Amino acid sequence: MVLRSKNLVRYVFQNQHKLIQQLLVQSQVRLCSGHGGIQQKAQLRLDEEDSFPKITEVSPIAAPFPMTIEHAADVGEQFKYSDLSVRLAAPHQLNPKPDVDDLAFGKYFTDHMLRVSYHRRLGGWQKPEITPMENLNLHPAAKVFHYAIELFEGMKAYRGYDGKIRFFRPDMNMARMNVTAYRSGLPTFESEELIKAMGRLVMIDSEWVPHTESASLYIRPTLIGIEPTLGVASSDSALLYTILSPVGPYFKPGASGLKLYAEPKYTRAWPGGVGDRKVGSNYGPTIHVQREALRNGCHQVLWLYGDDHQLTEVGVMNIFMLYMKENRERELLTPPLDGLILPGITRDSIIRLCHQWGEFSIKEQKFTMPMVKKLAKEGRLLEMFGTGTAAVISPIERIAYMGEDIYVPTETHDNPLFRRLYNTLTDIQYGKMDHPWAYVID
Amino acid sequence: MVLRSKNLVRYVFQNQHKLIQQLLVQSQVRLCSGHGGIQQKAQLRLDEEDSFPKITEVSPIAAPFPMTIEHAADVGEQFKYSDLSVRLAAPHQLNPKPDVDDLAFGKYFTDHMLRVSYHRRLGGWQKPEITPMENLNLHPAAKVFHYAIELFEGMKAYRGYDGKIRFFRPDMNMARMNVTAYRSGLPTFESEELIKAMGRLVMIDSEWVPHTESASLYIRPTLIGIEPTLGVASSDSALLYTILSPVGPYFKPGASGLKLYAEPKYTRAWPGGVGDRKVGSNYGPTIHVQREALRNGCHQVLWLYGDDHQLTEVGVMNIFMLYMKENRERELLTPPLDGLILPGITRDSIIRLCHQWGEFSIKEQKFTMPMVKKLAKEGRLLEMFGTGTAAVISPIERIAYMGEDIYVPTETHDNPLFRRLYNTLTDIQYGKMDHPWAYVID
Repeated sequence: MVLRSKNLVRYVFQNQHKLIQQLLVQSQVRLCSGHGGIQQKAQLRLDEEDSFPKITEVSPIAAPFPMTIEHAADVGEQFKYSDLSVRLAAPHQLNPKPDVDDLAFGKYFTDHMLRVSYHRRLGGWQKPEITPMENLNLHPAAKVFHYAIELFEGMKAYRGYDGKIRFFRPDMNMARMNVTAYRSGLPTFESEELIKAMGRLVMIDSEWVPHTESASLYIRPTLIGIEPTLGVASSDSALLYTILSPVGPYFKPGASGLKLYAEPKYTRAWPGGVGDRKVGSNYGPTIHVQREALRNGCHQVLWLYGDDHQLTEVGVMNIFMLYMKENRERELLTPPLDGLILPGITRDSIIRLCHQWGEFSIKEQKFTMPMVKKLAKEGRLLEMFGTGTAAVISPIERIAYMGEDIYVPTETHDNPLFRRLYNTLTDIQYGKMDHPWAYVID
Repeated sequence: MVLRSKNLVRYVFQNQHKLIQQLLVQSQVRLCSGHGGIQQKAQLRLDEEDSFPKITEVSPIAAPFPMTIEHAADVGEQFKYSDLSVRLAAPHQLNPKPDVDDLAFGKYFTDHMLRVSYHRRLGGWQKPEITPMENLNLHPAAKVFHYAIELFEGMKAYRGYDGKIRFFRPDMNMARMNVTAYRSGLPTFESEELIKAMGRLVMIDSEWVPHTESASLYIRPTLIGIEPTLGVASSDSALLYTILSPVGPYFKPGASGLKLYAEPKYTRAWPGGVGDRKVGSNYGPTIHVQREALRNGCHQVLWLYGDDHQLTEVGVMNIFMLYMKENRERELLTPPLDGLILPGITRDSIIRLCHQWGEFSIKEQKFTMPMVKKLAKEGRLLEMFGTGTAAVISPIERIAYMGEDIYVPTETHDNPLFRRLYNTLTDIQYGKMDHPWAYVID
């Protein structure tokens, strides 16, 4: 069927998220990834969790970064959601939607993107626009290609069991993005305006938000310096854009826990650097080490720091360790925000949840490989896991360290903490639990 | 006059470097930057330098990196200069040439560029091509925009007093670029093939090589990862390209020596990182600090490392210090290649020249701010200067450090070392002195 009416096409695009329930009943639409298992699974999950307390409030603990940005005096005009223009893809520009099983991380992209240009000489931020997904056309001297003047965020849109689509704490991503922009000599912006514009983008491509709880729509806001001059200096022109990619689980389901490669000769970040900002420069240099980890039969790198081999991050995730103190009480540790690690939003959420549960102490505190070894040897090491938006929570099973293979019994317990946290976070994200961290888009 | 014959246009393009002398005599061509002062200046220089010994041989000291690259087994096909295709810009695509006084660093670009694509799935490196200078067209998910999978080199083409155009030690740049590519998970290539292709590019745009000794044609080979997937992993597609920009002196002539901002809270690089590789990630994070330096009335950042405040680099240059030992003998120090600093080609050249002169000892050895302070106080600090391809040699005059203002008398001596080194290097580069480091293009 070829739709000939422009207005009808536009109507369908803009309202597809409202039409979806009806179309589903009629089974006329090929959805992006499987649908139907959600309610069944939801029921199962609720049964499993009955013994856990439910979370309804957030208790502030420590703000990882300022939530309101002070713009530099010379940043110029801000962009506004109300100025957003939309140019929809023509039917022939639409991309085929992938199978749910084929959803490798960040491999497929939706039909539209959001972009906002910044030119200091034109007065600052220009009007935001949603366009069909298309290539960027940049001068080969653009600073992003030479000096890594680039930063990004990782967010997700989740299709809830109620059909509503949600972001998770988007204000946190925007605050972190602004702090990172400032550190990178790039222009800052009003968080709320970008959240609204991204909400609109997701609704236009809402058919790409997977109809399953095992997948979601990954959102990649990106800010790059595009001034075409080779001086090592801040960029007077920038491009803020957002692309969307339906993603399955970052690590394959059913896979065993992570095996980590802890090689003290490599360092991810250091005091006085940018390890606590989400810039491209924190990622490029890790790829060589990640390849070495794979060659050594490990999944991810465990990044150590200092002569005492402090644990800092795992792959591109924050790290947590649950252990038993000498008095047999449990305690959860995660490294502090001392500039060496990324202030993760999943990390922050976990700290707040555990504080609220109040069942064990949780500390932002350095811990080292000798300490991990000792705890493992004494049977007091309970769980270790990585946390992040892409991977949510990933249990750790082994650490290859200085010729040893340290076993971590993360997945051997009844009701392990990592699973309880995973379930709580996904319950909030998929709308099974009413929570202020969930941001419903409409 | 409009040239209507395609063949004539092509002939002029390909042979403009041979036509130039003739056209100069007829004064019919507007040259990129002034011409005419070279021979006069050359004479003056020779007079000044009579007291210095002349260098004719290179004595190897310490190789900063392996000069031959071992390609990874899976890199695939290599590209060859003999496969180079050339698509010349049409007359209407030619850019106007800037005035010599307006040659800010990396602001203007020539009419053509060189590009070589790499696609693992297509078997490796594709055929190199010279095309008109044009924008890159890249997917917004290309890894270069997100994870700083990017690296570059800085080289120059110099128009000698004899009209010949020269590179300076291009094999060193290519070896460093390959070492950096390997560290970045990007494909390596045959150095000699790229040197030849860049030589051809420079000859096609040879009219852009300034006709003066105070300027040159900056060459920017760049390698970026362009695979459009968001996983933090090495890129199976890459683009190697080279753009050219006529440049004046990096620092304005006649300006006073550099004033440096030495703030121990910032660190450029650290052991286990990539401070010794020419990746974009070493530059982006410095821009914020450079802005802070400017706000504090300084020109450049003096990068310190460690609790003892070792000097590592200055801005984007290597650093040297000439001082008087307690026995009143002079000694030149520069930090060692311990992973914290870039293995500069100007740095290496200076070490070799001074070794050959044999007039004072030269050591690759750590030195600290307390040591600099002490030497300054005792009147034993003679000269400090930064070195690099863009800036050649830049004398340092002051260091703002921990609330103090340390004065360095670099420019107050008769026949200072920094000027003698500058003259020797530029004599080699501009062909006034026959030397194996000069690579004549034809």
